[in-house]
Amino acid sequence: MIELGPNRYGKAAIRLVKLVREPDRHRIRDLTVTVALEGDFALAHTGGDNAGVIATDTMKNTVYALAPEHLSGPIEDFGQVLAGHFLRNDQVAVATISIREHRWSPLPTDAGPSRDAFIRLGDFTRTAFVTGRRDKTVIEAGVEDLTVMKTAKSAFSGFPRDELTTLPETDDRIMATKVSATWRYGRPGLDWDAVHDGVLGTLLDVMAEHESPSVQASIWIVGRAVLERHVAVDEIRMVLPNLHHWAVDLRPFGLDNRGEIFVATSEPHGLIEATVRRTPG
Amino acid sequence: MIELGPNRYGKAAIRLVKLVREPDRHRIRDLTVTVALEGDFALAHTGGDNAGVIATDTMKNTVYALAPEHLSGPIEDFGQVLAGHFLRNDQVAVATISIREHRWSPLPTDAGPSRDAFIRLGDFTRTAFVTGRRDKTVIEAGVEDLTVMKTAKSAFSGFPRDELTTLPETDDRIMATKVSATWRYGRPGLDWDAVHDGVLGTLLDVMAEHESPSVQASIWIVGRAVLERHVAVDEIRMVLPNLHHWAVDLRPFGLDNRGEIFVATSEPHGLIEATVRRTPG
Amino acid sequence: MIELGPNRYGKAAIRLVKLVREPDRHRIRDLTVTVALEGDFALAHTGGDNAGVIATDTMKNTVYALAPEHLSGPIEDFGQVLAGHFLRNDQVAVATISIREHRWSPLPTDAGPSRDAFIRLGDFTRTAFVTGRRDKTVIEAGVEDLTVMKTAKSAFSGFPRDELTTLPETDDRIMATKVSATWRYGRPGLDWDAVHDGVLGTLLDVMAEHESPSVQASIWIVGRAVLERHVAVDEIRMVLPNLHHWAVDLRPFGLDNRGEIFVATSEPHGLIEATVRRTPG
Amino acid sequence: MIELGPNRYGKAAIRLVKLVREPDRHRIRDLTVTVALEGDFALAHTGGDNAGVIATDTMKNTVYALAPEHLSGPIEDFGQVLAGHFLRNDQVAVATISIREHRWSPLPTDAGPSRDAFIRLGDFTRTAFVTGRRDKTVIEAGVEDLTVMKTAKSAFSGFPRDELTTLPETDDRIMATKVSATWRYGRPGLDWDAVHDGVLGTLLDVMAEHESPSVQASIWIVGRAVLERHVAVDEIRMVLPNLHHWAVDLRPFGLDNRGEIFVATSEPHGLIEATVRRTPG
Repeated sequence: MIELGPNRYGKAAIRLVKLVREPDRHRIRDLTVTVALEGDFALAHTGGDNAGVIATDTMKNTVYALAPEHLSGPIEDFGQVLAGHFLRNDQVAVATISIREHRWSPLPTDAGPSRDAFIRLGDFTRTAFVTGRRDKTVIEAGVEDLTVMKTAKSAFSGFPRDELTTLPETDDRIMATKVSATWRYGRPGLDWDAVHDGVLGTLLDVMAEHESPSVQASIWIVGRAVLERHVAVDEIRMVLPNLHHWAVDLRPFGLDNRGEIFVATSEPHGLIEATVRRTPG
Repeated sequence: MIELGPNRYGKAAIRLVKLVREPDRHRIRDLTVTVALEGDFALAHTGGDNAGVIATDTMKNTVYALAPEHLSGPIEDFGQVLAGHFLRNDQVAVATISIREHRWSPLPTDAGPSRDAFIRLGDFTRTAFVTGRRDKTVIEAGVEDLTVMKTAKSAFSGFPRDELTTLPETDDRIMATKVSATWRYGRPGLDWDAVHDGVLGTLLDVMAEHESPSVQASIWIVGRAVLERHVAVDEIRMVLPNLHHWAVDLRPFGLDNRGEIFVATSEPHGLIEATVRRTPG
Repeated sequence: MIELGPNRYGKAAIRLVKLVREPDRHRIRDLTVTVALEGDFALAHTGGDNAGVIATDTMKNTVYALAPEHLSGPIEDFGQVLAGHFLRNDQVAVATISIREHRWSPLPTDAGPSRDAFIRLGDFTRTAFVTGRRDKTVIEAGVEDLTVMKTAKSAFSGFPRDELTTLPETDDRIMATKVSATWRYGRPGLDWDAVHDGVLGTLLDVMAEHESPSVQASIWIVGRAVLERHVAVDEIRMVLPNLHHWAVDLRPFGLDNRGEIFVATSEPHGLIEATVRRTPG
Repeated sequence: MIELGPNRYGKAAIRLVKLVREPDRHRIRDLTVTVALEGDFALAHTGGDNAGVIATDTMKNTVYALAPEHLSGPIEDFGQVLAGHFLRNDQVAVATISIREHRWSPLPTDAGPSRDAFIRLGDFTRTAFVTGRRDKTVIEAGVEDLTVMKTAKSAFSGFPRDELTTLPETDDRIMATKVSATWRYGRPGLDWDAVHDGVLGTLLDVMAEHESPSVQASIWIVGRAVLERHVAVDEIRMVLPNLHHWAVDLRPFGLDNRGEIFVATSEPHGLIEATVRRTPG
């Protein structure tokens, strides 16, 4: 017997810019939204029956049509409105809304920050993931594309050596990584902007200050600090590539490289993922 | 209380080319390998203790060091050797080896196919995923980056309409997608190349021949055919973006566009995912 | 005094798919078109006067509107029609049409090549560049994204050594490159498909067969062969990155790497560019 | 007769990180360097003679070997040192050094800016291009990947209309572009950091403040301001894609879109390029 297993569908990469025309300045909201639905869609697959299939084109329309009224605050709120909208369809059991917000800052001018011209920032992307079910909504938030480098307080030693191990031990290396972090809130109705600022602040502060014996330990130390300092957060997951910076051997050129000259590499790269969470129960 | 949740780590994007110097011609094996380990690595995180942490640099060395002897056949076999190697470490519970094989073909010359010059093909990438555990090894295979277009036998109609629906019904549209398909084999020791060829052949044949009422139905129809024709496959998962080709409105220019002129788009795109499997038990 | 210097403008990345519905099969034309105009556009810049500025949106419309009638043969012909169209505007002195054609092949089915389902090929992109002026039209063609690897008949030795040179000499290396080649035709009205096939065939044949002492010499050898064998071609320019494949040092693992195991790299890369041409006059 | 035409070669994508360990803080220099040489290299092509071919591997070594001593100030200076080094080879007539500097900022911590942890900024990349010849060195600088958006003071109207024109006139549109700007300095030995800050400041100030009747006019207005305010600059070239933001038609949903909701697009895009310069003589 052959059967349909897990399935979901939706619309990805919906690019939405909302221009907020405040009296004395403009503000830009620049989002990439993805909608994904799960539920009773078996007949669409096995019967070719589209009677219950919300068109992904309609999902796109929905994002644009709800933005004038409902994209007025944090993306966590807009995501909840969208998830709630799709859950009004009986056949939808789970509506997952993923939003990436691209950040813009007023252009500096000789007369101060511009009121209607902006530069796109690229230091990180704010994310929100709203997973709506009839009985419960889970709200997660995070950051992507946040590249950090620790030039001190990073070591890697004491690891096992076998006949295939050539990496020297080091008590002082460069640690560079592009942080993807996603944390789950334990309660609804928070001041999403404030709590996001807070968590990100802790993440950056601890990432900078801690002594790292490994990327694994860094995730734990940063994650634990986030949970300790932010009661609203129940769990944080981090995915950290280790973007190796190798010291260049300058001895052939009669030079001594005292931790000064590195080649930055992108492949291969380490990839370390872990979740830190409150113990259930 | 705060605890460590799920975690894993490894090395990604290990680029390996093996040149096989056969008497009358060369052959190229061109792989991108990723290694990921799970197991008893809690102390590395919470204690900063690296005593059990196989360095990801060592993982990379392992891939290169085992290639001369063990990369002689299908990537499914090389993946099993690598997974088995890492499982010899007590603290490793799961070793996942992901391999992408990039395809090369002898250059055409006036004297026939070249013996030592090649062109990289770009129609698809073959994949294998070996998940090794002490008690069981799961072998999956598939394709990525396989872009197909159906210019007939694709419709989308009968879907529900609400006040946010503007998409017209159509009984003749272009369906274009970049196929990611992964299937799981139910048994070990197969002729991996032959079965991969067979499954891919079915996938392409059915993708071409079937009447599609929706992308959802296409996944079911293709997936079911794969399971029906290939007893070695227990399950297949497909992820299909719907890369919309919109008919251009040529009426402003006094022209009638009878399904001839389209604008190819990449965002937004539909995204349809489903698994088709043998009913357990 | 401040003045306007060289300037041009246009529309890039116009994505056009034309579906040709022949009686017994479909054919796909899949193009990315760029239009660029030069001419008397100074007032647009210095006076903010758009009276002579053909909107880039109109350029896009033009590509779509002329496709039904004029995209029936080689892209070189479609490019000429487009260039001629824009030159009908008095203020346009030069109209440059750049076309990339993405290649599709009928899907293989159990009953032979499909009549209406296709797979996108990725081994190369065909290009054409039509530069139209009132008194003359220059037609160039070429290929992009053609990745080749020579696993024999490639050396690099005899280069000068100074205190910063560490590269060993080699009489047997892997040479891998992603070919960009553009050639200029000396006459109009050719059978563009046939001559393109011919030039590409020569390029591949000679790339495979020649003994390469350097990438520089390879460009010369391939380019000269193209000019010798194809009288329609006046000049060919090649841009060849040297995508280094470094032999992995396996000695730490007790293995001898006899030109078998390589790490494929993408950065840094050599970059060699040269033109080979018929001597003027 | 067949001859060698224009040619050059070099090494691209050399990734260099220099860590400057100052007493109370670290500083990161993160560069991508490209070296290209022109000169008397005909024999390398036509004779396969490498006696004069500086290996591109040696170019890479040179960048790393000269960094400890010579990468202490602006990239314009490091570029000059590198160009001068390569010009010491007799066969080199032109040495072009292209440097992109990736920007990092100290991580914010609870105790102020970190002394040894950094975040990579993504708002723009600083560039320098040093073209060294025996008799003269040209120094250019600029920015790349600087994405700006004007949400007011941008219009496009008065352009010619023909039967292929459908774009409405507008006196209030969003103008978004990713700025590439390169300017040429008229004299050596400047305070490169200060003058770069100055030019970039003018570019951003005028980009924000000016009324734009077209992208063409914007280049002129910004470019002229740069030349007027910065006597050290002789010429500036800007390449501006027009990244269209189209107002979404919300009328089908009973909504009026008063310049509020836009879809951000990346293709097709306008592409406007122009140079503004001091009149020679």
